[in-house]
Amino acid sequence: MKIGFIGLGNMGAPMARNLLKAGHELTVFDVVQSNVDALVAHGAGKAKAATTPAAILKEGVEVIVTMLPAAQHVKSVYLGNDGILSGNVDGVILIDSSTIDPMSAREVAKAAAAKKALMLDAPVSGGTGGAEAGTLTFMVGGEEGLYAQMQSLLQAMGKNIVYCGAAGNGQVAKVANNMLLGISMIGTAEAMALGVSLGMDAKVLAGIINTSSGRCWSSDTYNPYPGVLENVPASRGYTGGFGSDLMLKDLGLATEAAKLAKQPVPLGSLAQQVYQTFSLQGNGGLDFSAIIKLFTKK
Amino acid sequence: MKIGFIGLGNMGAPMARNLLKAGHELTVFDVVQSNVDALVAHGAGKAKAATTPAAILKEGVEVIVTMLPAAQHVKSVYLGNDGILSGNVDGVILIDSSTIDPMSAREVAKAAAAKKALMLDAPVSGGTGGAEAGTLTFMVGGEEGLYAQMQSLLQAMGKNIVYCGAAGNGQVAKVANNMLLGISMIGTAEAMALGVSLGMDAKVLAGIINTSSGRCWSSDTYNPYPGVLENVPASRGYTGGFGSDLMLKDLGLATEAAKLAKQPVPLGSLAQQVYQTFSLQGNGGLDFSAIIKLFTKK
Amino acid sequence: MKIGFIGLGNMGAPMARNLLKAGHELTVFDVVQSNVDALVAHGAGKAKAATTPAAILKEGVEVIVTMLPAAQHVKSVYLGNDGILSGNVDGVILIDSSTIDPMSAREVAKAAAAKKALMLDAPVSGGTGGAEAGTLTFMVGGEEGLYAQMQSLLQAMGKNIVYCGAAGNGQVAKVANNMLLGISMIGTAEAMALGVSLGMDAKVLAGIINTSSGRCWSSDTYNPYPGVLENVPASRGYTGGFGSDLMLKDLGLATEAAKLAKQPVPLGSLAQQVYQTFSLQGNGGLDFSAIIKLFTKK
Amino acid sequence: MKIGFIGLGNMGAPMARNLLKAGHELTVFDVVQSNVDALVAHGAGKAKAATTPAAILKEGVEVIVTMLPAAQHVKSVYLGNDGILSGNVDGVILIDSSTIDPMSAREVAKAAAAKKALMLDAPVSGGTGGAEAGTLTFMVGGEEGLYAQMQSLLQAMGKNIVYCGAAGNGQVAKVANNMLLGISMIGTAEAMALGVSLGMDAKVLAGIINTSSGRCWSSDTYNPYPGVLENVPASRGYTGGFGSDLMLKDLGLATEAAKLAKQPVPLGSLAQQVYQTFSLQGNGGLDFSAIIKLFTKK
Repeated sequence: MKIGFIGLGNMGAPMARNLLKAGHELTVFDVVQSNVDALVAHGAGKAKAATTPAAILKEGVEVIVTMLPAAQHVKSVYLGNDGILSGNVDGVILIDSSTIDPMSAREVAKAAAAKKALMLDAPVSGGTGGAEAGTLTFMVGGEEGLYAQMQSLLQAMGKNIVYCGAAGNGQVAKVANNMLLGISMIGTAEAMALGVSLGMDAKVLAGIINTSSGRCWSSDTYNPYPGVLENVPASRGYTGGFGSDLMLKDLGLATEAAKLAKQPVPLGSLAQQVYQTFSLQGNGGLDFSAIIKLFTKK
Repeated sequence: MKIGFIGLGNMGAPMARNLLKAGHELTVFDVVQSNVDALVAHGAGKAKAATTPAAILKEGVEVIVTMLPAAQHVKSVYLGNDGILSGNVDGVILIDSSTIDPMSAREVAKAAAAKKALMLDAPVSGGTGGAEAGTLTFMVGGEEGLYAQMQSLLQAMGKNIVYCGAAGNGQVAKVANNMLLGISMIGTAEAMALGVSLGMDAKVLAGIINTSSGRCWSSDTYNPYPGVLENVPASRGYTGGFGSDLMLKDLGLATEAAKLAKQPVPLGSLAQQVYQTFSLQGNGGLDFSAIIKLFTKK
Repeated sequence: MKIGFIGLGNMGAPMARNLLKAGHELTVFDVVQSNVDALVAHGAGKAKAATTPAAILKEGVEVIVTMLPAAQHVKSVYLGNDGILSGNVDGVILIDSSTIDPMSAREVAKAAAAKKALMLDAPVSGGTGGAEAGTLTFMVGGEEGLYAQMQSLLQAMGKNIVYCGAAGNGQVAKVANNMLLGISMIGTAEAMALGVSLGMDAKVLAGIINTSSGRCWSSDTYNPYPGVLENVPASRGYTGGFGSDLMLKDLGLATEAAKLAKQPVPLGSLAQQVYQTFSLQGNGGLDFSAIIKLFTKK
Repeated sequence: MKIGFIGLGNMGAPMARNLLKAGHELTVFDVVQSNVDALVAHGAGKAKAATTPAAILKEGVEVIVTMLPAAQHVKSVYLGNDGILSGNVDGVILIDSSTIDPMSAREVAKAAAAKKALMLDAPVSGGTGGAEAGTLTFMVGGEEGLYAQMQSLLQAMGKNIVYCGAAGNGQVAKVANNMLLGISMIGTAEAMALGVSLGMDAKVLAGIINTSSGRCWSSDTYNPYPGVLENVPASRGYTGGFGSDLMLKDLGLATEAAKLAKQPVPLGSLAQQVYQTFSLQGNGGLDFSAIIKLFTKK
């Protein structure tokens, strides 16, 4: 299939390489020229460069995948002067895998529909590791038939392709899940730090929580207390994993969406402030489970 | 075995009945005479009444189990004028299944040791349903040998008997687990209410969270959104289950323990305030998953 | 002076009338035609209508004042197709009195400067009462010389005209002050409700606080406890005053600005959530001191 | 007058010296012998030592003043084996100036009344500086007649002697005021840090807030931003003043009292957590306005 790909950063580049590996031909764009050059070189004849988002359309692509840092970039790439929707997108399938707020996703989807493009929002989870390995989870919003049609394409980049409902719902699912994740991680960190400081062994405490009603992914799969689990960031100095500043970004999306929806999210909001405090102290680059450092003596 | 039992309320009475069912002989005490009468009648000759906690010791019991509402009652029953420790407790095994703060538990354990009694703190989870069915979880703190020796006795009342370490650690485990539970429940309620208000189907959203990093007991086993799971309080008007005011009590124990241990618990503390607000509005008797009502329009 | 005025709502209409009263001639615009008609009628020959924001410029105005509900309206009125900056604004003085986030204010100011307009951001406090009475406080950001030049014009509408520094700083001052106001009001409500529930007389407690270190405007000038002060919303059923939903809006601007500035604002953020909860329960129309209802039994 | 004085620490010692200065004769007790020796030496014949709290009564004192660190010490000094109430206190006036929770104050007052003693709770504000200078504020709970009778005695140690109502209300007033103070200080710190980081001058911002609705003691009298006010801890490296750990203690009393009174105090509770976090990072000894360090880059 002929595919356009816009956004060749830490996530986008390995996703694009997985599409090449699956036999697709790519036309790519990125604001950083070296990112473009690297991907074109990697493509060995199957990948070429475009000079603007709209220029990709002239290559006769059937699908364009975008993977961008924030809503402002998505709006610029789709709605800007040389943006995708400035070209002829009639019948073209547009898949935005950026993580942005649901309202912006729906605004872009509406603009795309007005130009007769077919659009899905499909944010991912799984991090750069999942992007490299092709094991990402895609949370997909848009027409169910289009989702079904695109499933095999997305499987070149991911393992779980989950349908979430109408346009924007992929973003809703991601933002809701990640807000709960941020809350659970801080909650687990508080509970582990409290228990240990009151005299319990960390592994024993985790074992009890993991078979009780406090059980959660942050406790049984990604425990923030060093030494409880092997092969998690907590056991290698909080390197790798999902950065605290990325969690902070997602909590910002969640509280923004909540504000627009007039929904109270007291714990989600406080979780954002806890990560903001942690980031101000210079820890934004550490894995998000490092938040336990706020609750333990240095 | 000859066993003393003090505290025949909603939890204590069915626990005592399960001990009778297992063939033990009981001497019981409660400040409410009708509770005592009912248990003695149920015992059909195998249960008799004592007039004070200390009086139980005169019946030659090997073990005394206590199940009381709060630390003040535990201190009164053990340390008061006619309290257990005012009698001869040399070699007697004392098991306190009340949920109280770890510091009070350790204070009583120390006083018991000074009188040569053998003491375990063994708070439970599982609610009145688990107490009736004999399927409670016991979180046990104290000497490991004593724990091992008492395991079969406790199995007459519970299913999982978990060793948590030295004296007071049963309370630490319970308080840490339940604080995380309260946080996770509010977090799940916020995430579900937010997602639905942004246009997602509740079951679809729960399905995604339950296979993602937001997964937790509150989401996959006890989801607060009506209709997502059958046979949970959310699907029967938030009746039964674990009352909001009981969760409020446990969050109070957690923040009190955190204060004494000089540990920050920002989310645990806010969870307490959220439940306090909910209780003030007259909802303390509803199951604790009803907290989602704070986040949904009436 | 010939002045343009855009935005004739609850705040803008009385402000425009005060300009007429001071002898200025107005050309006005509003999306609601009846608002325009009312003002033109009131003007009795000194006020005429324009059909678009840009059309106002054709009337040879020296100054345009805008008073709009939110950043999206400000952007549309200044940057839109028929917006002010689409006309010839060379040398025209633009004063935006809307309350919006500082970043949007600066974006518009920058666009205005590129067109050689002279711009001030000048949000107000004082509510509709102050707008009627001409006693508003203006917090002004932009060139200091321009501020000095406009002071007398602004005094037709307000009493205190405060210079806050460079472009956008008027909004910064407003957002910082109102965030602190929201926090102080909830804090005062918590302290009053706590003290009274512990047995103190509300007036005695307020008297002590007002001469001690807890003293604040919310306590000594606008006390939320009914009966402590006369002539405040608390003593007339929380009618009139500054609506809870307006405080909620300002807290939303504050936390949004904090997010962009990477600043933690834990209490500001929780204050937003407390007002969001109060609003969801149907109280958004009550004065913001009514928040004490969350802390008192019905 | 013959007066007993118990608790000769940083606050108690200068208070006792002020009583001597006013011509009273003292009998003193403290668990630290060197504190006792220093006061007796200072008394030059007008102060003698007692070996227990109860022993003071044998010296024929009319009044006993106590100034102790926490409720546990107060209970021990009044209710313990050699405590004041173990002696003959018929008609003796007891004044407790310790800052403790209102419930404990009332428990002690009730026990005193049962022994026919006359008791006031009279916690102070003003710090060690006010204790030295004799300018403390006393917040007094108990019988109004007794308060009137003791006013002149208290004026030997303080400037403002405020009547707060029935027994325990002195503690209620202090706890409510100081909770609001802690909230206002953090709020002021958030607002100042936010405004400055968005480009405002700190003095200009403080000037605007201090004449607007955000005005509070923490902003106009004790501003936490360095350089805004002279002669406050913020302008001398946060030394002196009222320590962060003392504010943390008072917030702990407030949330404890709120829990017992079933009152939500979301901002008070979060303020406690913010100070606990600050203390864990090693800053408990800094003045409480140093909390702004949590919101500013190092």
